[in-house]
Amino acid sequence: MFKGRDVISILDFTKEDLITLFKEAREMEKYAKSRINILQGKVLALAFFEPSTRTMFSFQTAMLRLGGSVLVFSEVEKTSIAKGENLGDTIRMLDSYANAIVIRHRIEGAASYAAEIAESPVINAGDGTHHHPTQAMIDYYTIWREKGGIEGLTLGVLGDLKYGRAASSFILASTIFKPKKLYLISPQELRVKPEIREFLEEHNVKYVETQNLKEVLGGLDVLYVTRIQRERFPDLAEYEKVKGSYRVTSNILKYAKEDLMILHPLPRVEEISFDVDVTRYAYYFKQASYGVPVRMALLKLILSGD
Amino acid sequence: MFKGRDVISILDFTKEDLITLFKEAREMEKYAKSRINILQGKVLALAFFEPSTRTMFSFQTAMLRLGGSVLVFSEVEKTSIAKGENLGDTIRMLDSYANAIVIRHRIEGAASYAAEIAESPVINAGDGTHHHPTQAMIDYYTIWREKGGIEGLTLGVLGDLKYGRAASSFILASTIFKPKKLYLISPQELRVKPEIREFLEEHNVKYVETQNLKEVLGGLDVLYVTRIQRERFPDLAEYEKVKGSYRVTSNILKYAKEDLMILHPLPRVEEISFDVDVTRYAYYFKQASYGVPVRMALLKLILSGD
Amino acid sequence: MFKGRDVISILDFTKEDLITLFKEAREMEKYAKSRINILQGKVLALAFFEPSTRTMFSFQTAMLRLGGSVLVFSEVEKTSIAKGENLGDTIRMLDSYANAIVIRHRIEGAASYAAEIAESPVINAGDGTHHHPTQAMIDYYTIWREKGGIEGLTLGVLGDLKYGRAASSFILASTIFKPKKLYLISPQELRVKPEIREFLEEHNVKYVETQNLKEVLGGLDVLYVTRIQRERFPDLAEYEKVKGSYRVTSNILKYAKEDLMILHPLPRVEEISFDVDVTRYAYYFKQASYGVPVRMALLKLILSGD
Repeated sequence: MFKGRDVISILDFTKEDLITLFKEAREMEKYAKSRINILQGKVLALAFFEPSTRTMFSFQTAMLRLGGSVLVFSEVEKTSIAKGENLGDTIRMLDSYANAIVIRHRIEGAASYAAEIAESPVINAGDGTHHHPTQAMIDYYTIWREKGGIEGLTLGVLGDLKYGRAASSFILASTIFKPKKLYLISPQELRVKPEIREFLEEHNVKYVETQNLKEVLGGLDVLYVTRIQRERFPDLAEYEKVKGSYRVTSNILKYAKEDLMILHPLPRVEEISFDVDVTRYAYYFKQASYGVPVRMALLKLILSGD
Repeated sequence: MFKGRDVISILDFTKEDLITLFKEAREMEKYAKSRINILQGKVLALAFFEPSTRTMFSFQTAMLRLGGSVLVFSEVEKTSIAKGENLGDTIRMLDSYANAIVIRHRIEGAASYAAEIAESPVINAGDGTHHHPTQAMIDYYTIWREKGGIEGLTLGVLGDLKYGRAASSFILASTIFKPKKLYLISPQELRVKPEIREFLEEHNVKYVETQNLKEVLGGLDVLYVTRIQRERFPDLAEYEKVKGSYRVTSNILKYAKEDLMILHPLPRVEEISFDVDVTRYAYYFKQASYGVPVRMALLKLILSGD
Repeated sequence: MFKGRDVISILDFTKEDLITLFKEAREMEKYAKSRINILQGKVLALAFFEPSTRTMFSFQTAMLRLGGSVLVFSEVEKTSIAKGENLGDTIRMLDSYANAIVIRHRIEGAASYAAEIAESPVINAGDGTHHHPTQAMIDYYTIWREKGGIEGLTLGVLGDLKYGRAASSFILASTIFKPKKLYLISPQELRVKPEIREFLEEHNVKYVETQNLKEVLGGLDVLYVTRIQRERFPDLAEYEKVKGSYRVTSNILKYAKEDLMILHPLPRVEEISFDVDVTRYAYYFKQASYGVPVRMALLKLILSGD
C-alpha cells in the first residue's frame, strides 16, 4: 500500500497505513546507526528550495543507511532557479535522474504540483504553512513508541498554530489517531485557522482552545511545543507581553503530570529552556533521532522492489 | 582510445570516437535508473566555479549509477578561492584526492589549464563562452539515437550564437558529423563569430545565416534552441523588438515538418513556450535525460580499468 | 588505543600513539586513490561552521576511500544556526545521525564542548586560533615519511605564530617529537604567545625566536611556512614593511641546505612564490596529498570494529 506512492499530506494515510509504517520503523531502529542494503543503487533527490538542516540530513542519513545515494539540490540562489527556471522543469530534471524526490518549498501546493509532473514518487518535506507529513509521522511514532499507543491520551499543542507547518500537520493527524482530548494552546493572534477547527469537528476530535498553558498543563500526557516567531505579531509590544506565557521552563513543569512527554520538532530557540533538557519530560532529542528510522521505513516501503 | 583522456573540446574527438561513445551510451541507458558497479571505489571531483545544476547533477548521477562517488566543490565564495587561492593550487588539491576532475569555470581556457596541471583526466563542463563538449555529445547523441543518424539532416541553431557556449559547441561539432545543411538563426547582434564561420567553411559545412526563423523552419529536421539574454543587447529597446521573433511557440510550429525535433540544452526561460512541451516536436526533456547515460559512457570509457 | 576516542588536541597523543598512526597511514597510502572497504555502512558528519575546502575534502575523500559515507554540514548561514539554534542542539542532531563528527568552528573550545555532548567520537578540524590536531598529524607524518624520523632535525616555523592555528599545533607537537632545535621565525607582532613559550620550556624543547629568516635558513632541515594576514597588523604601513622578509622565494633559497624540506598547510597566497614550486625543496603538495592516508588511518583506528 506504500509502493510507488506520493507522500503529500499526512491525511493521505489511514491509521492502518501509519501503524504499518511504525512497525517497520521499529524494525529499522536496528539499522539506524549501521546499514541494511535494501536500496542499493537507488538515488534519492533532495530538492530543498527552503533550507532545513534536520529534515535534509535525516532523509540523507536514512537513504545512506539503506545503501542508497542522494542528490542534494539546496542552493536555491546559485542555480537555474535564480536564472528563472520554472519549478516544473526543475522537477522534470530531478525526475529523470533520481528514483524518488523529496521536496521542500515555501509555496503551498508545491509538493502536490511536483507529484503531478514527476513519474517518480514525491515526498513533501514541507510546503509553505501547509503540510509536513513526515514530521507528523515522526511525532506520532514517538508517542506510539514511547507510550504504547495514542487513543487514550490527552495531547496539547503549544505555539504558533496558525502558520506553523509542523503544528498544523500534528493537529490534522489527530483526526487519524483520535486522542482522548486535544488542547490547542496559543496566543489569540496565532489560533488555528477556522478551516482546521471545522475539520477537527467533522472528524469528532474533542478539542479545546486556550491561551493559558499553566491551567491545562496538569491534564496533559503529551505537550507538543512549537516556536512563536516574533515576526508574526503586527505589534512587537504584544509579542513581548505574551512570549513568557508560552515558554516551557522547569519551573512551570511543577504543574505537569509525572509522565508528561514534551515534544518539539526542533530547532528550538527560547520556547523550551535548557534546564528542561535534563528532566524526565524531555523527549525531543529522542524524537529527533527517530527521524532516521521513520524515514528509512518510509523510503523502504515506497522504493523497495519485491 | 578514451582511457585516461582529457575532454576539453568536442573537436578533440573524431566521428569514430563519438560513435563509440554513443554505442556505449545506448548500453548505459539500461542502468541510468539503477546501477552497474564499474567504477566502485573511484572518486570524481566536480569543480564548479560557476553554478550549473543540470550539468553537475547529471555528472553526479552518472558517477553514482556507475558505483563511484563524487566530491562536490561548488561553493566558490565560501572557500579558499575567496581567500585568494589560485586555480592551479586548487586543481592540484583535487587531483591528489580524486580519480578524475570535471571543471566548469567562467574563464576561457580554464579547463585546458587544469588539464596541464592535473595528472588525472580533466573533463571540461563549460569554460567561458567557449566549449561545453559533453553538452554537444548529448545533443548529437539525441539526434543519432532518435533519428538514426545525422548525415542527411538539415539542422537549425537558434538564439545567441555569439556568446552561447552550448550553441557554439553544437555548431563546432557539425564539422564532425557533416549534416546536409546548417541554418544559423539569430539576431544580427548575436551572429556567430567570424572565426567560427571560417572554421565551418574550412570543413565544408554548408551553412546559411538568417535572422528569420519562420522562413527556414519548414526545411528543418532539427531545431536547436538556445536562450537570448537581455544583457547581451546594448540597447534594451532593440531586445524588446526582436525577442518575439526568436521564441518557439506552438503557433509558429504550424510551419514545421511533421517530424521536426526541437532540442534545448535547458534551462529554458521564455524561448520555448510551455504549450510546445506537449507537442510531438518537444525532445528537450528526453535530451536532458540522455545526459546521464552519455556521461556514464564517457566516465566508463575514461576511468574503467581493463 | 584509538578506538572510540575524541581528537581534540595533538597533545592528547603520545609519541607512541602517533607512530602507530603513521605506520597505519603508510599502509593506507596504497588505497588513497582506490578503495578499502573497512568502514562500509559508517557515516561521518562533517560539521564545518567555518569554511575549509582542503580539510573538508580530505576527510570526505578519506571516508569514501574507506567505503563509508559523509554528511556535509557546511552552509552555516542558510541553516538552523542562522535561525538561532545553539551549537549543543546541532551537535546532538549530528550525533544521532552519524557514527563520528568532524567539527571546525571559529570559537576556541568548540570541539571540546561538542565532545562532551556527543556520544560519537568528535574530531577537531580547527577551533579558533587554538588547535588543528589532524593538520599537525599530517605535517609530522610528512617529515617522518620523507626524512625517516624527526629527532635529529632542526625545524623552523615561519609566519603568524600568534594567531595561526596550524602553526600553533605544529609548535605544540614539537614537545612530543623533540626535534634537535626549533626556530620560531616571525615579526615581533606575531610572536608565539607566552604560554606556548613556557610550554616549550617545560618540555625541554630547545627553541630560538628570531625575526630574520635569512640568518637561520642555512641551519634548517624543515621550514614550515604559514600565512601572515594583513588584518593582524594594527598598522598597515608596518605590514607592508615586513611582509617581504617573510616571503619564501627561489632567491632566498640560495641560503638553504641542499635537503631543506619546505612545508605549508595550504592554501598559500603570496608567502611562497610560484617559482619555488618546481624546486627540490617544495614538499607542500606532497604534504597535502598525505592528508588522505593520514585521515584514513585516523578514521580506521577510531571507527573500525575489531
